[in-house]
Amino acid sequence: MDDSRRTQWEHRMEAPLSVAALLFLASYAIRVLGHDLPGPVLDLCLAMTFASWAVFALDFAVRWRLSGRGLSFVRHHWLDAVIMVLPLLRPLQIVRTYDAVRRRHEQPRLSLHARVVAYAGMSASLLGFAAALAVYQAERGAPGATIRTFGDSVWWACSTLATVGYGDAVPVTPLGRLVAVALMGGGLALLGAVTGSFSSWMLQVFSREGDEKPPGNSPGASRKDNG
Amino acid sequence: MDDSRRTQWEHRMEAPLSVAALLFLASYAIRVLGHDLPGPVLDLCLAMTFASWAVFALDFAVRWRLSGRGLSFVRHHWLDAVIMVLPLLRPLQIVRTYDAVRRRHEQPRLSLHARVVAYAGMSASLLGFAAALAVYQAERGAPGATIRTFGDSVWWACSTLATVGYGDAVPVTPLGRLVAVALMGGGLALLGAVTGSFSSWMLQVFSREGDEKPPGNSPGASRKDNG
Amino acid sequence: MDDSRRTQWEHRMEAPLSVAALLFLASYAIRVLGHDLPGPVLDLCLAMTFASWAVFALDFAVRWRLSGRGLSFVRHHWLDAVIMVLPLLRPLQIVRTYDAVRRRHEQPRLSLHARVVAYAGMSASLLGFAAALAVYQAERGAPGATIRTFGDSVWWACSTLATVGYGDAVPVTPLGRLVAVALMGGGLALLGAVTGSFSSWMLQVFSREGDEKPPGNSPGASRKDNG
Amino acid sequence: MDDSRRTQWEHRMEAPLSVAALLFLASYAIRVLGHDLPGPVLDLCLAMTFASWAVFALDFAVRWRLSGRGLSFVRHHWLDAVIMVLPLLRPLQIVRTYDAVRRRHEQPRLSLHARVVAYAGMSASLLGFAAALAVYQAERGAPGATIRTFGDSVWWACSTLATVGYGDAVPVTPLGRLVAVALMGGGLALLGAVTGSFSSWMLQVFSREGDEKPPGNSPGASRKDNG
Repeated sequence: MDDSRRTQWEHRMEAPLSVAALLFLASYAIRVLGHDLPGPVLDLCLAMTFASWAVFALDFAVRWRLSGRGLSFVRHHWLDAVIMVLPLLRPLQIVRTYDAVRRRHEQPRLSLHARVVAYAGMSASLLGFAAALAVYQAERGAPGATIRTFGDSVWWACSTLATVGYGDAVPVTPLGRLVAVALMGGGLALLGAVTGSFSSWMLQVFSREGDEKPPGNSPGASRKDNG
Repeated sequence: MDDSRRTQWEHRMEAPLSVAALLFLASYAIRVLGHDLPGPVLDLCLAMTFASWAVFALDFAVRWRLSGRGLSFVRHHWLDAVIMVLPLLRPLQIVRTYDAVRRRHEQPRLSLHARVVAYAGMSASLLGFAAALAVYQAERGAPGATIRTFGDSVWWACSTLATVGYGDAVPVTPLGRLVAVALMGGGLALLGAVTGSFSSWMLQVFSREGDEKPPGNSPGASRKDNG
Repeated sequence: MDDSRRTQWEHRMEAPLSVAALLFLASYAIRVLGHDLPGPVLDLCLAMTFASWAVFALDFAVRWRLSGRGLSFVRHHWLDAVIMVLPLLRPLQIVRTYDAVRRRHEQPRLSLHARVVAYAGMSASLLGFAAALAVYQAERGAPGATIRTFGDSVWWACSTLATVGYGDAVPVTPLGRLVAVALMGGGLALLGAVTGSFSSWMLQVFSREGDEKPPGNSPGASRKDNG
Repeated sequence: MDDSRRTQWEHRMEAPLSVAALLFLASYAIRVLGHDLPGPVLDLCLAMTFASWAVFALDFAVRWRLSGRGLSFVRHHWLDAVIMVLPLLRPLQIVRTYDAVRRRHEQPRLSLHARVVAYAGMSASLLGFAAALAVYQAERGAPGATIRTFGDSVWWACSTLATVGYGDAVPVTPLGRLVAVALMGGGLALLGAVTGSFSSWMLQVFSREGDEKPPGNSPGASRKDNG
């Protein structure tokens, strides 16, 4: 019965959490990018950031309560815990929602590799955007900074995520560098998943095409390539 | 019957589309690299670029018509849609043509991994060349640019595709950086497929060699390594 | 009987070796970072470094003796030999210990991929930290050095391990560059294992989730994706 | 019978080719690094380089003759053709020789992954060394060069192979950049194979260890992780 109540709660919170995640990202972005807006607007943004974050904390607490478990809940729902701390990652649920919508319409699901590519790619983009915001805020006024506009910051985030690292725009403050290290750690693992899945998916497409084209010609030959 | 007409159309358009793709790339390259050519020549190039692009748009439209489907056609033929928007990728078909030629001569096909390496490697090269052209055009006159010759631009594209990113030649204009980000996104996924397939192929070659060399010595041992 | 004595020895040395490894790392770090400490303290650190190293050498020698084998022992226990030379890697055993503790409590083990990620990730972090220490020591007083503080050195190690390589902080001395090459060699292989396993693990999670969600809908479809 | 003569020839040429490859690399290295040696010595080195290269060309020609085939020989022995053009890669045979020696002594062979790592790693190192020599020769006297000593060149080659690319030492001449692009192309594919195989090998080791430790505890669980 606890389980059914938890499922119900999760179902009911789906929409509010998505809205809260978008509010979180939007209010943070406005606060960072619109630093020449009047003070009250910025304060409002800050309040909105905290309010949307509180929704996540509340959701996590309620689900913990409903589970009736102790610390083991956190261990088994560490992804939810991570999303609670970093609500920026919430939009990831969009992929799941899109998937559910397709299933309802009885369309075939996205293939496994496509789902991983979409999931990991979107997480990496969101991480990159959030990191660009955070680094821009940290570097903006620093002496000797090479990241001076938000465009520089996005450019830096892209070249970091791709592990290209030109070095023409680099964080120089300790806080900026800390964000950069977090971006490297998270982003590279995610992008490794993207390229790995993309590569597997490409092999699958090519091997399927190979099977289809020569219908009578020893299908075993191309199946062997698959192994 | 629609299907047979579509197949017929695709068969008939093979050669014109390949010519159009080459014209597209050539005319764009001439316009960018030969910027000291007389005006009418450059205008001719621009016209040729648009004309060859129109061939792709037309082909896509006709095939859409013949399919008798709505938007779902675009979803299922997204690769064709991408090629329509970026005809530079059309030469990819060369691999398929080469493959068909080999099959007609009853020679064994390229192995699966070799095909993926060839396909992805060629796409990456073409993307890199096109990006080098576009970045050169964007950066040529920019103040403080480090990409001043087409050679610099090709060098930049190579070091970006390899994710080395020395940073001695880097786009500084917004347009150049946009092209760079596109190159990173597309190129890295493709090169990930290249190295992934190359690695798999190498494992296959080594494991096959291992099977052949010691003919009587427990072939199961090396087969286990394969799993 | 030799085997049982060796197992006994290994069991008894577990705790002392862990302590020695921590002492080794700590004393080396203090010696490098606390270079303005009074001389006797630094001498004590140096002595501690050598003493803890001696524990590893002794352990290796005893186990070699007990094995009753010649050089083939070194060949089959090359990981132990590496740990003897570079005791910094000893803390890797923590993962094994954690694993053992879980088993004792009859909890499920960490999954294979999670274990590889944890192992390789921790090794890479430790290598990076040790390399940052060594490079800082080598570069500190060098003319024209761009690595001037320990923070710079850690930042350099992170950007090197992620293969980003901004180039804003780079070793210029031969010794520093030697350490850097060692870090690249070791770190990249380990991080390749991390991203590879993370990618496999993500595919596994997604494919399992796919199996669970649509319980009646042709489980074969998603199992095929797995292959 | 042709086959047996070819095998005989290949067997007889094994040692001379290895010597020729070493001579080739050594004489080229001496000519590049010892540019302040007296002229006759340098001329001797140049002669030796060509002579050792001639041995490879001769070997290739004789084997082509003995095969009694036309151009298809080149297509099927493209690796040999590559080694003929770039004899630097000949030392790769060392791995095969070592393997053969082990088999003669009835020792277990190197595992598949270890062989790929050894093979690809050695090829990459040799490519890197040769590229460092060639780039040093091209850049030595160039105006504005950042690669001024052979140490710089080796450092550049290492940071390029690892795709770190700091950018503190970068080729500026067209010839140097051409060599760099070749190194990126070849080296990255090889190192991709190294990290890929290392990652697979690590997964294998961990999964085997997992199988061994809990002997009675449901071996199916860890086998599932393998899939």
